[in-house]
Amino acid sequence: MKHIEHIGIAVKNLEESNDLFAKLLGKPHYKTEAVVSEGVNTSFFKVGENKIELLEATSEASPIAKFLAKKGEGVHHIAFAVDDILSEIERLKKEGFTVLHDLPKKGADNKLVAFLHPKSSNGVLIELCQEIKE
Amino acid sequence: MKHIEHIGIAVKNLEESNDLFAKLLGKPHYKTEAVVSEGVNTSFFKVGENKIELLEATSEASPIAKFLAKKGEGVHHIAFAVDDILSEIERLKKEGFTVLHDLPKKGADNKLVAFLHPKSSNGVLIELCQEIKE
Repeated sequence: MKHIEHIGIAVKNLEESNDLFAKLLGKPHYKTEAVVSEGVNTSFFKVGENKIELLEATSEASPIAKFLAKKGEGVHHIAFAVDDILSEIERLKKEGFTVLHDLPKKGADNKLVAFLHPKSSNGVLIELCQEIKE
Repeated sequence: MKHIEHIGIAVKNLEESNDLFAKLLGKPHYKTEAVVSEGVNTSFFKVGENKIELLEATSEASPIAKFLAKKGEGVHHIAFAVDDILSEIERLKKEGFTVLHDLPKKGADNKLVAFLHPKSSNGVLIELCQEIKE
């Protein structure tokens, strides 16, 4: 775990929340990106060395739609940057964490990602993300 | 808002969660601190430029005890470092955010702190914190 890459926040309406977070942070989001496989539209803000990722569901099957229905808007996950996601998955499994999928998936923002089940990490959904080198 | 100073995570048992987060982050917490006025014991981990603050309730009247009873363990707040907390409170009130108390309080880790109501910030409890200069 190198550093916190971003904090993911589930929102109902991306456009309204982009305005809200621009007011909060004093600057606008710098990009938006659709992740069709996850059924989400995302936007990104830069704050110091971290990013804030807002996530809006684009279908009822989206994990974000399910999260919003169950818990409402709020922090969805914390993502940590790692150098080698496969070895980090192995290390964390040995430490007793539940990895949701052993093979990383392509996520937003040019990253390979994997998630730890919140039940094994104090109720916090943890994302590991490794930059995809072109 | 300069950067994310820390992420606060509500936990049931600080000792067990210190072990868990040491495994997750690959290093132990570097300090603990009781904030008697808030009814919490805290511990801190450093990750890149951010900290992770674990919060355990020490009484049933603690805001953390109420959070755990309502939502269970998980992310409790995101804290942003600010240079001038009073002017930031004024700015955010003008932008439509609900500040929980106009006068900053003494928080953990030698900080003056103030909170924004999560209803005005997409379900996220936001803390502003300003370092107290000795």
